[in-house]
This record gives sequence, C-alpha cells and structure tokens, in this order.
Amino acid sequence: MALLTELGTEIAIPVCAVIGIIFSLVQWYIVSRVKVTPESGASATKNGKNGYSDYLIEEEEGINDQNVVAKCAEIQNAISEGATSFLFTEYQYVGIFMVAFAILIFLFLGSVEGFSTKNAPCTYDKEKLCKPALATAIFSTVSFVLGAITSVISGFLGMKIATYANARTTLEARKGVGKAFIVAFRSGAVMGFLLAANGLLVLYITINVFKIYYGDDWEGLFEAITGYGLGGSSMALFGRVGGGIYTKAADVGADLVGKIERNIPEDDPRNPAVIADNVGDNVGDIAGMGSDLFGSYAEASCAALVVASISSFGTTHDFTAMCYPLLISSMGILVCLITTLFATDFFEIKAVKEIEPALKNQLIISTILMTVGIAIVTWTCLPSSFTIFNFGAQKVVKNWQLFLCVCVGLWAGLIIGFVTEYYTSNAYSPVQDVADSCRTGAATNVIFGLALGYKSVIIPIFAIAVSIFISFTFAAMYGIAVAALGMLSTIATGLAIDAYGPISDNAGGIAEMAGMSHRIRERTDALDAAGNTTAAIGKGFAIGSAALVSLALFGAFVSRAAISTVDVLTPKVFIGLIVGAMLPYWFSAMTMKSVGSAALKMVEEVRRQFNTIPGLMEGLAKPDYATCVKISTDASIKEMIPPGALVMLTPLIVGIFFGVETLSGVLAGSLVSGVQIAISASNTGGAWDNAKKYIEAGASEHARTLGPKGSEPHKAAVIGDTIGDPLKDTSGPSLNILIKLMAVESLVFAPFFATHGGLLFKIWG
Amino acid sequence: MALLTELGTEIAIPVCAVIGIIFSLVQWYIVSRVKVTPESGASATKNGKNGYSDYLIEEEEGINDQNVVAKCAEIQNAISEGATSFLFTEYQYVGIFMVAFAILIFLFLGSVEGFSTKNAPCTYDKEKLCKPALATAIFSTVSFVLGAITSVISGFLGMKIATYANARTTLEARKGVGKAFIVAFRSGAVMGFLLAANGLLVLYITINVFKIYYGDDWEGLFEAITGYGLGGSSMALFGRVGGGIYTKAADVGADLVGKIERNIPEDDPRNPAVIADNVGDNVGDIAGMGSDLFGSYAEASCAALVVASISSFGTTHDFTAMCYPLLISSMGILVCLITTLFATDFFEIKAVKEIEPALKNQLIISTILMTVGIAIVTWTCLPSSFTIFNFGAQKVVKNWQLFLCVCVGLWAGLIIGFVTEYYTSNAYSPVQDVADSCRTGAATNVIFGLALGYKSVIIPIFAIAVSIFISFTFAAMYGIAVAALGMLSTIATGLAIDAYGPISDNAGGIAEMAGMSHRIRERTDALDAAGNTTAAIGKGFAIGSAALVSLALFGAFVSRAAISTVDVLTPKVFIGLIVGAMLPYWFSAMTMKSVGSAALKMVEEVRRQFNTIPGLMEGLAKPDYATCVKISTDASIKEMIPPGALVMLTPLIVGIFFGVETLSGVLAGSLVSGVQIAISASNTGGAWDNAKKYIEAGASEHARTLGPKGSEPHKAAVIGDTIGDPLKDTSGPSLNILIKLMAVESLVFAPFFATHGGLLFKIWG
Repeated sequence: MALLTELGTEIAIPVCAVIGIIFSLVQWYIVSRVKVTPESGASATKNGKNGYSDYLIEEEEGINDQNVVAKCAEIQNAISEGATSFLFTEYQYVGIFMVAFAILIFLFLGSVEGFSTKNAPCTYDKEKLCKPALATAIFSTVSFVLGAITSVISGFLGMKIATYANARTTLEARKGVGKAFIVAFRSGAVMGFLLAANGLLVLYITINVFKIYYGDDWEGLFEAITGYGLGGSSMALFGRVGGGIYTKAADVGADLVGKIERNIPEDDPRNPAVIADNVGDNVGDIAGMGSDLFGSYAEASCAALVVASISSFGTTHDFTAMCYPLLISSMGILVCLITTLFATDFFEIKAVKEIEPALKNQLIISTILMTVGIAIVTWTCLPSSFTIFNFGAQKVVKNWQLFLCVCVGLWAGLIIGFVTEYYTSNAYSPVQDVADSCRTGAATNVIFGLALGYKSVIIPIFAIAVSIFISFTFAAMYGIAVAALGMLSTIATGLAIDAYGPISDNAGGIAEMAGMSHRIRERTDALDAAGNTTAAIGKGFAIGSAALVSLALFGAFVSRAAISTVDVLTPKVFIGLIVGAMLPYWFSAMTMKSVGSAALKMVEEVRRQFNTIPGLMEGLAKPDYATCVKISTDASIKEMIPPGALVMLTPLIVGIFFGVETLSGVLAGSLVSGVQIAISASNTGGAWDNAKKYIEAGASEHARTLGPKGSEPHKAAVIGDTIGDPLKDTSGPSLNILIKLMAVESLVFAPFFATHGGLLFKIWG
Repeated sequence: MALLTELGTEIAIPVCAVIGIIFSLVQWYIVSRVKVTPESGASATKNGKNGYSDYLIEEEEGINDQNVVAKCAEIQNAISEGATSFLFTEYQYVGIFMVAFAILIFLFLGSVEGFSTKNAPCTYDKEKLCKPALATAIFSTVSFVLGAITSVISGFLGMKIATYANARTTLEARKGVGKAFIVAFRSGAVMGFLLAANGLLVLYITINVFKIYYGDDWEGLFEAITGYGLGGSSMALFGRVGGGIYTKAADVGADLVGKIERNIPEDDPRNPAVIADNVGDNVGDIAGMGSDLFGSYAEASCAALVVASISSFGTTHDFTAMCYPLLISSMGILVCLITTLFATDFFEIKAVKEIEPALKNQLIISTILMTVGIAIVTWTCLPSSFTIFNFGAQKVVKNWQLFLCVCVGLWAGLIIGFVTEYYTSNAYSPVQDVADSCRTGAATNVIFGLALGYKSVIIPIFAIAVSIFISFTFAAMYGIAVAALGMLSTIATGLAIDAYGPISDNAGGIAEMAGMSHRIRERTDALDAAGNTTAAIGKGFAIGSAALVSLALFGAFVSRAAISTVDVLTPKVFIGLIVGAMLPYWFSAMTMKSVGSAALKMVEEVRRQFNTIPGLMEGLAKPDYATCVKISTDASIKEMIPPGALVMLTPLIVGIFFGVETLSGVLAGSLVSGVQIAISASNTGGAWDNAKKYIEAGASEHARTLGPKGSEPHKAAVIGDTIGDPLKDTSGPSLNILIKLMAVESLVFAPFFATHGGLLFKIWG
C-alpha cells in the first residue's frame, strides 16, 4: 500500500529523533566553546583570541578585563542556581502531584469495569475482544508518568542551557552583534531540538513497549497512550502557571521598588530582586513555554493516534499509516535542522537590522520546507484512500486531503505569527498609534492597548476557523489533530526562536550588572528587542496550536465517551457552554491576583533590604539575592494552587456530577472563549511593551516627539507596560493550559465519566 | 380551562397599560409643580413657599435668589436643547435606516415563496393552510416600523422628562435631600412606566389589528409580530451604541482638557464641553438604557409569542393562555406601581444614608410582590397542563412549572443586581481593595480592576445558567422566553431606579454651573453616588436579560429555520461558534476606538475655544456650548456606523453565504462570549469609578490614608476611572445590542436563509 514499509517506519522515527538529539548536543558543544572562566578568558586575551579565532573588537575599551568576565560568570551562576533551586522546589510539589494524580487515574479508570481482569468486547469494534479496563488503567498511569517525566527533563535541560548561554551571549556581544546572536540562537536551538526529539523518542519507545502486552489490540493500546499527553500537559500547568507567576512577581516587584521608589535603572545590581527577575525570564519563558509546547505536541500526537487506532489504519493494522503523526514530527526535526543552518551557518548577521529578518526568515523557510516534507511523508506513508472514524461512522479520506489538513495547520501558524508581529512590533502602525496615545496620558494608552488586543484577535480566529473547517470537513477529528501537528511540526525552530528571546534579555541584564560598556548594552538591547517580537509570535503560535489541540482532544473525548452529538440546544449542553465560556475569566482573575499578591511579597522584601542593609543604595554592600529568589519560588508555588485546582477539578466535578454532555459544553465554551482572551491579552501586553521601547529608542521623528525617557508620554507608556506584564506572561499564556488540560483530562477520564458520571441528573431525573 | 376568559384578557391587558400611562402622567404632573421660572420662583419666595408648602430650609443662605433659579432654568434649557438636537439629528439617520431596512425585510421575506399571493401549508402544522409568505413580509415590515417608532417615542419622552427634571431636582435639593430624591425618582418613574406601558399597549393593539387579517392563522400572525422585536432592538443600536459613544466622547473630551490641561473642576461652566457632557448623561443612560431594555422586552415577548403560537395555546386557539407573556407584563405594571409608592409616598427619605437602601428596597419589594403576581397570573390564565413546541416535538408542561420558569428569571435578576452591587459599591471590600491598590500606582489599579471585573462574572453566570437549566428543562425555548420576561417584568421599577442616576448626576452639574452653595452640591453628590451603584445594577440587569432574550430568540430562530440540532461537532457549526465568540472582541475594539476618535475631536474643539475666546478662563466670556454639542452629535453618529454595520451585516452575510447551521454557531458563540465581556467591562468600570469616589469622599480611616483629592493614589484612581468610562458606558453595554440584535435579525430572516442561504457551501459542496 504505502511506499514506506513497517520496518522502514520502525527505523525512520528513532533515527530522526536521534539525529535531533545529536544536533542539539553539537549546538551545545559549540556554545560551550565560549569560555566564561576568567582563567581561560585571560589566556585567550593573551593570544588575542577568545575561543573563536576573531580578535575582540572592543579590546581597546578595556572591557575584556578579567574582572568583567569573572563578574559575568558570577552572575550567571547566581541565575543558574536560582533557576535550579526554583525547579527543585517545584519538583517536590510536582512529585506529590504526580503520585496523587497517578493514583487517581488508576482508581478511576480501573473502576470502570470494577477492576476486572477479564478481556471485554472493544468499545468500537464490538466483535473483537479488548484488554481489560484494568490494563488501560495501569498503562495509562504509566504513560502519564512517562509524559510528565519527559516534560520535566526537557524543561530542566532547556533551563540549564539557557542559563549556561546568557553570560556567553554577553561576552560574545563584545565581538559584535552577529556573534552574540549566534550564541543565543544556538542555545535556543538546543532547547528546541532536545524537546522535539525527546518527546518523539519517548513516545515511540512507549508505544513499542506497550505493544508487547497489547498485541493487536490497538484500540486499547492507544487509549492507554493518551496518558502521555495528560502527563506532558499537567507538567505544563506547573511550568506555565507557576513559572508565569514567578517571572512576573519578580519583574513587577523589582520594578515597583527599583524603578519607581528608588529610581534606579532596570537590571541594576543594587536591586535585591534583580537575580530573581532574571531567573524569572528563564523559568517563565523557557521552561514554561517549553512545557506548554511539549504538552501541545504530546496531546496532538495522542489525539491523532487514538482516532487513528479506531480508523482503518488501526483496524487493518497498517503500522506505517498508523505512525503518520510521528512521521510528520520526524520529518519536522529534519526540516528544522536545515532551517537552523540558515541562521547559524549559511548566512552571517552583521548588523542590528538584520536580526529580526533573520528570525522571521526562520519561520518562512521552515514553513516552506515543511510543506515539501509533509508531501513526502504523506505520499510515502499513506495509502491513497482510507477511512477515518467520525463520531460513530467511518469516513473515506484521500491522502491528498490529509496532506491539505496538515498544511492548513502549518500555514495557519505562519499567518498567526505574522499577524501577531504586525500588532506587537513597533515597526507598524498599531503599536505606534498606541505609543502616540500616550500623549494624552496613561488612560488613553490603556484604552488603545486594550482595543488593539481585541482587534488582533480577528485574523487569527479566521485563520483557525478556516483550518478547522478544512481539516474537520476532510478528515473529522483526525484532520484537526494532524492540523495541530502541522502547526507544531516546526516546533524545534519555533522554540529556538522563542528561547532566544529570554537568553538575550538575560544577556542584557548581565551586561548591565557586570558594568559593561554602553555599546555592549546597546547590542544586547537590539537582540532583546527582536526577541520581544519573536516572543509574541511564539505566544500566538502556542495559543493557535492549543486551540487546535483542544478541539482534537475534545473530539476524541466525545468519541470515547460515546456521545453522538453535542447539541447546543439542550439544557445540559448549553449551561456547560456558558459556564465554560466563563472559566477563562475566573482563571484569569485568579492568575492576575496571584501575580499581584506574589509581587507584593517581593516588594516588601526589597524594601526591607534597602532599609536594613547599610550601604546598599551606594553600591557598597551586596543585596541578599537568594532571599528574593526564595520568595518568588515559594509565592509562585503557593499562588498557583487556586488556578491549578480550578483547571484540574473542573472536569472532574462536572464529569462526576453533571455528566459528559455538560462536560462537552464546558470544553467547547472554554475553548472558544479562552482562545480569544489568550490572544488579546498576550498581544495587548506585547504592544504596550514595544510602545514603551519605541518611545525609549526614539528611532523615528515621531518617536522622538514622544520621548525621551522620563517624559510624560514615556511615563504613561511605562504604566501600560507594567499592566501588560501579567497579561502577556501570566494570565494570557496560562489560558493555553486551561483549555488543553481540561480537554485531555476529560479524554483520559471519559470512560469513567460515561459509566459513573452525571450523578446529579441521575438523582434529580 | 383558565379562570380568565378571553374577554377578560382583552380588557385586562389594555387597562393595565392605560393605568401605567396615567400613573406616569401623574408623576410628571407632580414633578412639574416644581417651578423653575424665576417669576414664580420669586413669588414663591415672597410667600415663603416654592410650589410645595414647605419653607426653603436654606433661604437664609440667599441661594434662593432669582438669579440662581434663572441660571438653573437657562442651563436646563441648554441641556434639553442639546439633547433634542442630538435626537433629531439621530432620527434623520434612523429614518433612512428604517426605510432601507424595511425594504430589505419586505424583499427578503417576500422572496421566500417568490412573492406568491397564494396560501401555503403551514410550516409546523402541514395540514393547515397558512397565509402567503408575502403577507408575512408585509406584516413583518409593518410591525418592524411600529416597534421602531414605539422605541423612538419612548426614548424621546424619557429624555424630555429627564431634562425637564434635572434642574427641578437641583432646586428641590435646597429643601433637603429627601425632596430632591423624590423629584429625581418620580421623573425616573415617568420614563419607566411610559416605556413599559407603551410597549405593551402598542404590541397588544398590533396583535389585535393583525388578527383581523390573519384570522385563525396564529402561526403566521405571530411570525409577523417578530418584526416588532427587531424594530425595537434596531433602535436600541442607535440608542445604546450611538448614545454610548456620544456620552463618553463628551465626558472624556471635557475631562482631558478641563481637568487635566486647564485644571478646572468637573462641571465647570467655563468648560465648553460641559453641556455636551450633561447632554451625554441623558443620551447614553436614559435614552440608551431605555431603548436597550425596551428592545429586550419586545424581543422576549415576541420570542415567547412565536413559540406559543406553535404550541398547544396556538393550535387550540386559547387566547388567554396565548397572551400569558403580555399578562405577566401587565401584572408587572401594577406591581411596580405599588412598589413606587413605597419610595415616594409610604416612607420619607430624611438622611443621605437612607437613599441607597430605599433604592435597593425597590428591587426587593418589586421582586417579592411580583412573585405573588406571577402566581396569580399563572393560576388564573393557564390551563393546568398544556404542550410547548420543543424543536419538532410537543412537550407536556404543567402550569406550576411555567410559574417556576418566570420566577427563576425574576430572582436571577435580583441576584445579578446584588452581585453587581457587591462588586461595584465602595461599601464592600472588592472596590476598597482596588482603591488600596492605587497606593502602588495606576498600573496595579488597572490590574486589580480588570481582575475584579473578571471575577464578578462568576456568580451572574451561574445564576443565568441555573435559570436557563430550569426554564429550558421545564418548557424548552418558551421557558427561556418567559424567564426573560420574568426578569423584565419589573422593568418599570428597574428603569425608574436607573433613570434616577443621570437625573441626579445632571442635577449636581447644574448646581455647580449655577454656582449654588457647597451644601447643595453635597446633597446632589449623595444622590449621584447612590445612582452610580444603581446604574451598575441596572447594567447587570440589562445584560442578564439580554442573555436570556438572545437565547430565547436563538431557539425561536432554530425552530423557524427548521434545524433539528445545533451540533458543535460539525465543522459548519464549530467555525460559527469560534468566530461568534470573537465578534464581541471585534465589536468592543470598534466601540472603544470610536470613543477615542470622537473624544479627540472634542478635545480639539475645547482647546480651540480656550485658546481663541478671550476671557474664557477668567469666566468673563461664555463658551460656545452648541458647537461642542454638535461635534459630539456628528461624531457619535459617524462613529457608530462601523460597529453598527458589523452587527447588522454579520447575520445577513453568514446566513446568505454560510447558511443557518453556521449562523446558529455564530449566535451561540457571540452569546456565551459577549455576556462575559459585557458583565466584566461594566463592573470593572463601575468599580474604578467608585474607587475614585471612595478616595475622594474619604469617609473611612482607610479612605483618608489614600486621599485627599490630588494625592498620588487619587491620581492613579482617576486614570482607572477614565479607562473605565468607555468600558462601562459604551463597549460593555453595547454588547447587549450585539447579542440580541443578531439573534432577532436571524429570527426574522430565518425563512429566507433557510430557503436561499448557504450559497458558499452550495457552490463548494
């Protein structure tokens, strides 16, 4: 049937994954050649070299001084230690959560058939015997744990490399903006490739190991695999929500006392919260974003696989076609590898203005190459015609239709990325208008910023709607799942670009703290400005894929819960829909409040240190960075409990008491409402941030009329920026987790809810 | 069957309506006895009386001086003229719109059967012959025009009495806060009762006139009647959106130049935009709110009637039961009449602190009395058991179930009102926390305010969800429609309370402009503060009823378009759902931008006047109020076109090109998403307003640490208040119109869309 044999598939997938891992290790090795130890720095200076064969172009300024390098190394260590300490504290809670939730999964799924160990007729193919529900319970629990561990490892390694790379970027900035760019970008790539390849490899191995037990019961096998998605996604709750609270508590706390009360600049080493702030960038944007996208990736794969297992791929045991989702991801790793070379090897960045185009080209190149890649995978791995399970019926699908499904997701991602850029980059009129509105004060800035965010929702939603319509029409829920995978197929490049941002941001912070020259700071600022826009693009991307993934999971849930229609015009569904649409507001209120409370604790500590440590303001005494890191860590973990509980408990409560119909309504409602708030919050925040930067940079005639720093319009812009911080880095992106996690949790527990749920209506009816 | 005979019904409804009209005329007469002409004022002073038999308690201060009275009269005239001029300008556009839309209705509905004049089989009861579609087209057009005209007349009269009452309230404030309260409240009651009674009477007469033609074809008759709802609701577009833009353009424009640039107090007569600002209060809060609630009322009645006509009431020609919705409204008028007496006659307000409880008691009393009223109507007018049309099937309903449906709506309204009060009144901790967050600046104020708004959505949504669940389960779409009518049954009292707010606000403005003493201003401020909270309650109420009404209309649309299920898990419906959920964001972005643009024009004009009119700042020359009024008028009409077009065109475009399934999705999506934004926007705005007032009033120890006026926290609070203005008075309440108008438009055009719609899929499929 297909060109690629089963054996070929069995080889191709792990090979691609291993190539990805090797590539990322190579990048890591290259980055590690930049030395931050003063000894080698000194010896390199003696030779006029610094690991690379280039002369340090700023040697004459004396900044290549041993002390500066030593200081950079010291700061990097502080950041790295802070980040690690946060992660290890978080892991204690993650551990407790994982054990508790694993037990819950086992008990709930095991109880579906009363912990029976007998084989039972399959859900979809009644004539066949499937493995007992108890097996599903056990294997779901195992795959949940595996998904969680993979996510944790990927996030941990990403953080390690990011904190390993930031001082190196600063040091490379002495040689020029191009060198610094490459270090930051390579480090981002380590994170991107490790995550994509690890996720694929672990999933692949898990499937093959489970297959030993399940044999030809593919339905049961891939049901159990959905636990992997739940594991990955529930870690994202800690990464995104906890990390989001951490980063903004530190940032807002540092700014409120430092910038406003004490009037010292950002990243000033006298500010006790400055290390916590830099740690926060890594915790929130690297580990958080990584776990979020890993969750999406794992969930989309699981949703596709579970639908495929009850389609013709599964029923006819066509392993190659069954692995289509994994093959797409494998191809994605290769495509991203080539794409990365365009940024690091094929071309060289020489000027500041080339940075942003280089990053944007990454997106365009990867999308174009991937389109070809999808075509290759589709025509070599799929039969020309097959059937896909479509809510009870089998639907005939052609391979070119599935090709279109994946492509539409891929290109929708690009469109969302570019629209996000248009609304958040200060090169275009929307942000410039927002900056202009600062003339009449903070109030108009906020009104215009909110309106901008609302407006920025329009095109992404149309892009998502078109993708959904095409992929849904062609291949039902399987189409949606592969569209999501299409959007996520270039995840390695997407993450590289995204991780590049906080690394550059940190590099700037280190330059400031190490007292490096103004020119170095200008270079890292240029890197950072480009990173701001790409961060916004990354967020748009994460939300778009979250929307598709949730819908795919929702579809899989409905199939597994054996509901035939989700009719809005039934009371049970409609109340679910309206309450579901409310949940993102409740959740946002919680996360915003959490940032506020955590920031307030930080403010108190920073004030205390300024008041009690003599000579701190004069730079004679060192602040106690560690206490601030600890406060951020503890506060973020504590404050994430209420929003986390809302996400984790809602599906359980609704499923148990109101049943699967109401739960369907809740999932649909929170999906369609949450995606709007997430996009608008993150773009509003991004626009305010860049409006402020626009005024500060003063690069145009118009911008100069608004500036300089400290002018009334600039003050208004700073207020907008501060408001935007929790919106764009905490409450907005956290909504991805809300919509995905509720959907995947419902999917995993679907058999339980279908059997034992809806207690309230059972009593009442 | 029922206790009330057909003749009894034919008498009861118009009698109640006429009682309502007479009652409002009496209130008007009482208000008119307060004289504002200096002559009679002078003569009254001579007798020591002023229309009333009380002595003016502040005579000794010399403020009863002829000049002050003359000035009040003059300002009142200016406001009244400004308001009238706005309305007449608006009516020109309304006229064009009405004619164009009437033609559209006629053409679209006429074309359903190709303008055939032959009777055709009925849609629901295929065995009977119904009047031709051409008749539906003609009568729908006529009822559309009637609905529109009724709305226009009610809004016009409301404005007239409000602008007639404001100076009278100011003058009465000299005698004490109680007297002033009663004048303001009576004037509000005029508006409330006129609107409720007129709406009922015109609808009742229309039904009876149409019946002459339709005879026993009740299905056709009540289909044609739905045009009445569309007419009422499309005028609300002008009232709410146009009025909302007007009021905030004037308010923000006046504040930006007056308060911030020129540093003169609010309502200072030197500010050229001050009259436009006062006109705006009437235009937005009186005419806008009135037309909004009238629209809800008309739509809920129409939705209930159209479902009833195809239920057993219609098929067995039980006129009394058929008129159940109208009888509920009739009872509502009587209940509100008694309730009003509690505020005006049974008790007397003597101190400032009694005002807010008096207004809140109005809500509680009317709700309790109305519960009894509903019981009376239900058991005298309905058979004990009947059937209700439920998407193709007939569902058996008991009369006590219908009683519960109406009650649940009524009481949900009260709950929403109280929750709104809790979140927006500065007597409770949420607003106090927001005020406290002003310590750390405007940014934290905005973050806390937004979080408060998000949080305030939770309980109202649960209240709405419970109402929907109960009424939907008991009596399908008819249950929802009567629940909405239950919430709106106390509309006369609701509107009286609501209109009281802007009248008091204006009274304060007049006191300021006329240069009356500080004590008078304190009294009107106290009236105004209570009015702020009731305005927020009124908005919560308007949104809650809009949600129920839209759902009822949506259900009626689905029935009329002959769709059997609205399954979220079909591509056509899902894309509608997600795009629908996006529309409120698009619409809000437009209305917020409109306010900004209109305000900017106002700013320019005010600046121009200050710069070019010599002696203006010194109070030697008079500003040109009329030009500012004209600018607000023109800008608001121009700026309402884009959002208006979005609302009016979306159902047409979606219906024609994508068909009824996608349109159902759009309606459901915009409903569940819009109601959240509307509630949160209006509560956030209300909370910021009252947080500012809390700091200004300095009534508690805590408040005094934040104040006084001009302190840093107060400045931060002012920024929040300015941001909240467009949220709470323009974009938030305008969303009611979005969700209702799209639903009623879809309902009216349903036969056309079902026959000729979905072009794109027809071509593509």
